[in-house]
Amino acid sequence: MAVYTDVSAEDLASFLADYDIGEPHAFKGIAEGVENTNYYLQTAKGAFILTLYEKRVRETDLPFFLDLMEHLARRGIPCPTPLRRRDAAAYGLLNGRPAAILAFLEGVSLRRPEPVHGRAAGRALAALHRAGMDFPARRANALGHDAWAAFARSCAASADTVQPGLAAMIVDEADFLARSWPKDLPRGVIHGDLFPDNVLFMGGTLSGLIDFYFACNDGLAYDLAVMINAWCFEPDGAFNVTKARSLIAGYEAGRALTVAERAALPVLARGAALRFLLTRLHDWLNQSPGALVRPKDPKEFVPRLKFHQGVAGPEAYGL
Amino acid sequence: MAVYTDVSAEDLASFLADYDIGEPHAFKGIAEGVENTNYYLQTAKGAFILTLYEKRVRETDLPFFLDLMEHLARRGIPCPTPLRRRDAAAYGLLNGRPAAILAFLEGVSLRRPEPVHGRAAGRALAALHRAGMDFPARRANALGHDAWAAFARSCAASADTVQPGLAAMIVDEADFLARSWPKDLPRGVIHGDLFPDNVLFMGGTLSGLIDFYFACNDGLAYDLAVMINAWCFEPDGAFNVTKARSLIAGYEAGRALTVAERAALPVLARGAALRFLLTRLHDWLNQSPGALVRPKDPKEFVPRLKFHQGVAGPEAYGL
Repeated sequence: MAVYTDVSAEDLASFLADYDIGEPHAFKGIAEGVENTNYYLQTAKGAFILTLYEKRVRETDLPFFLDLMEHLARRGIPCPTPLRRRDAAAYGLLNGRPAAILAFLEGVSLRRPEPVHGRAAGRALAALHRAGMDFPARRANALGHDAWAAFARSCAASADTVQPGLAAMIVDEADFLARSWPKDLPRGVIHGDLFPDNVLFMGGTLSGLIDFYFACNDGLAYDLAVMINAWCFEPDGAFNVTKARSLIAGYEAGRALTVAERAALPVLARGAALRFLLTRLHDWLNQSPGALVRPKDPKEFVPRLKFHQGVAGPEAYGL
Repeated sequence: MAVYTDVSAEDLASFLADYDIGEPHAFKGIAEGVENTNYYLQTAKGAFILTLYEKRVRETDLPFFLDLMEHLARRGIPCPTPLRRRDAAAYGLLNGRPAAILAFLEGVSLRRPEPVHGRAAGRALAALHRAGMDFPARRANALGHDAWAAFARSCAASADTVQPGLAAMIVDEADFLARSWPKDLPRGVIHGDLFPDNVLFMGGTLSGLIDFYFACNDGLAYDLAVMINAWCFEPDGAFNVTKARSLIAGYEAGRALTVAERAALPVLARGAALRFLLTRLHDWLNQSPGALVRPKDPKEFVPRLKFHQGVAGPEAYGL
């Protein structure tokens, strides 16, 4: 939630010269996205988000992300679409950073989504998975299951400063998942980060999916397991099975889980909990003094991981 | 430039229940204003800024600021106008803070304004001064000349850590100004902070004046002296007399300076330079570790103050 790169009206004007978009009527830095700098941009042609990609997004990944959003939008997924420049490129360079202009999506994200919202979001995830089937490009999941064992060890030295016992917990869990990770589940393009802040609603209706900068190729059901972690726990850490049932029913209305995917759900959910525990822990332990962002609390994912470790089977998720 | 207070869609919905504005189509925290938290809000009724007043704006001052904007807007000054609640109040309470909804102004602020922009901004300042003449409320300038001597002494102990000799410079200057401050100049409502980031342009045309949270009653020409400091120095510290001439000509097209005001301009400009040097120095020396804002560099105002100290008379400003 920060504006890392300052863009003046003059910088903007020269960047917009490569677009057929008209002159800016409004231009405001917005506090959205931990990874990038975002500006709200309005011209006579409409409303847009100007995104500058900061160091955590590699420029070599940008064509995947931007082409994917264009591909999905063409298939009816309400996601941001990059505006092409006059030379047809999907991004340019602004103040030394790759930068793209994306259509602005209306809607607001919910802090406390109800089961009905999770159902709509699950349905949207299934639609995204289907629409991604014929997307030709590939991107490995840089934060996927084969990265966790090394990642856990790199965080372990300081993990107990955050919570006693955390180092052993993450290393043991990563080792368990390395042994137990399900093979041969259906794969495809996943969003990878479909938390409630990345889903927009207008009234009760889902109006947008945003922040595709963790999108990659991985197991489809793992994407649903991310959502189980993100949408189905209460602020006090309690699991809400009604929300899980609703989320999964929404997903299955668009794409039925296979028998193997259902069986794997507890392990996938453990993996998703560990992934966010590890990345938040890393950001927590590596705060720079001048940071403009308050890192999210990794400890939120400890009870979630423990819950998944304790379930007897997929029926715990309301299946 | 930060969002200090987090507002969820759910918090927003209950706040909006007191307004006749419809439901939110967009709601984004924006990185604007050092003092307050601002959100861009869009509904079927239009675009707005939702401002939450943080601790630096006292709630007792809010009626002055909000009534003033309404008063000026009625007289044709392009400034944000507060949207009244159903009960006619100009602000309410949101997440424990006073909060108002203001009409969104189109336009962008310029980083490197040209003389033509300064002329338009000077003209707008004169229009603001005239439109404020019959505004009935009063607010003392909390950062006005009678506060500087004590303020300088409170910053002096650590000032030399920022730049050697700075402590003596600010204390001596404050003492000089206490002795030399001009009496009996025309007074009225001043903006008090009309830097280029508080003036919006669309194309070449001035479209808005924003951020009235330093507005108060003080000498009108002092407000122009603030603009001389803010609009007429180059990034390398050099004074640009063409910009000053243009700014003052723009101002005088709307309101002629009196003989006494012209004569006082060098002292007023010294005062304005000291005021921003002191407040920036204070913020620089009192950074909290978790701050989400990078303080502005106080040292920018050292060469400006020195310039004003060295001028032979008002003709240095192109008069």
